[in-house]
Amino acid sequence: MNKGQLLYEGKAKRLYQTEQEDILFVEYKNSATAFNGQKKAEIEGKGILNNRITTLIFERLKECGIDSHFVERISDNEQLVRKVDIIPIEVVVRNIAAGTLANRLGLEEGTPLKRTIVEFYYKDDALGDPLINNDHIDILGIATKEEVETLYEQGLKINNVLQPIFKEIGVILVDFKLEFGRDKDGNVLLADEISPDTCRLWDAETKQKLDKDVFRRDLGSLTQSYEIILARLGGK
Amino acid sequence: MNKGQLLYEGKAKRLYQTEQEDILFVEYKNSATAFNGQKKAEIEGKGILNNRITTLIFERLKECGIDSHFVERISDNEQLVRKVDIIPIEVVVRNIAAGTLANRLGLEEGTPLKRTIVEFYYKDDALGDPLINNDHIDILGIATKEEVETLYEQGLKINNVLQPIFKEIGVILVDFKLEFGRDKDGNVLLADEISPDTCRLWDAETKQKLDKDVFRRDLGSLTQSYEIILARLGGK
Repeated sequence: MNKGQLLYEGKAKRLYQTEQEDILFVEYKNSATAFNGQKKAEIEGKGILNNRITTLIFERLKECGIDSHFVERISDNEQLVRKVDIIPIEVVVRNIAAGTLANRLGLEEGTPLKRTIVEFYYKDDALGDPLINNDHIDILGIATKEEVETLYEQGLKINNVLQPIFKEIGVILVDFKLEFGRDKDGNVLLADEISPDTCRLWDAETKQKLDKDVFRRDLGSLTQSYEIILARLGGK
Repeated sequence: MNKGQLLYEGKAKRLYQTEQEDILFVEYKNSATAFNGQKKAEIEGKGILNNRITTLIFERLKECGIDSHFVERISDNEQLVRKVDIIPIEVVVRNIAAGTLANRLGLEEGTPLKRTIVEFYYKDDALGDPLINNDHIDILGIATKEEVETLYEQGLKINNVLQPIFKEIGVILVDFKLEFGRDKDGNVLLADEISPDTCRLWDAETKQKLDKDVFRRDLGSLTQSYEIILARLGGK
């Protein structure tokens, strides 16, 4: 497969067409961004780490019966994925209060939630990715009622698979963000990435943060944290 | 009925116990507040206007089969209501994009929504009354799943009654906020007030704002606007 036309450049990845219509080429960048792009840095090695971690997680999900757009990793910082139209809804799944949830509801960070919750955010940088409810999704016309149910259920299902995977390696899955797309037949498929950029991951013993909060809150070396996750997942 | 102990003082009203356990005495204040209390003023006559308008609206709702905590107006700025425990959820019903919805979704103010929508906000001044979803309500434990359904359905039902009432008097009901409480038997009952403080009301012809946005946005005399609403509703 060869890189064709650049289709999309996001904050952390570039997507290129390949010679095969329904397959895209994803290049993981070294850019780190936070607070809707207000904080930025280039971090050598980040793209490689997220490409490898996302690969391992999508492979594990597939083994557990959860399909995604992922096809294969083809280099240190590149992978092939199936082409989907991204639904502009960020699906956030939370087990423990942290970040914006702790602020929104006045909960102390680290408070376990009495059950896993799902939130939808409108994926729109200009609006600051606001929290939205099902009625907002309806009037925006960005997903059908059935799709919204699928997003909610898939969020919980993926959490049920990911939690034990992380628990096994001594990591608490605090929360994570998923994106989904529609394939050419209109099926909703897990897409984007699952990495320490999109999850909050705490060491089960020390509660050390091993995710993008290290960058957001200036807590140390991002790559050292991501390398711990990669190594524990069995990657190199 | 006599005023007993002051039970609660809010931004716009004071609630007192009466000698009858399940009846409260409500005193409408002249205070106007906006932006979570950051903007404040005392406006002579405002309490009288909101007491009278709320009375007329609760009476009309009752005629249309929608019960509320309202018992009777007993003076210019006072009314008696049934005692309820307020559910800390602000139920916002919207027909046209305005205010925070316009900002949240990037819609131009005045855009008609393709259908009426309902939003829930966590009634907590310290947190700035944040938007919440059904999962947030569940983990906060502030309402049961059945109560949340009731709030949603009552919001739409009250809108269906209020829209023609306002249309008849040449006013567009853009959006409004409701509060509900539980009576001693646990029944969910409409409470608080329905007035130009809690609704966006636009003149159908001129689109002139006849609600608290006049105060929020410094558009003229609040009492003149509220007097127009009172007069058109048939009050003095």
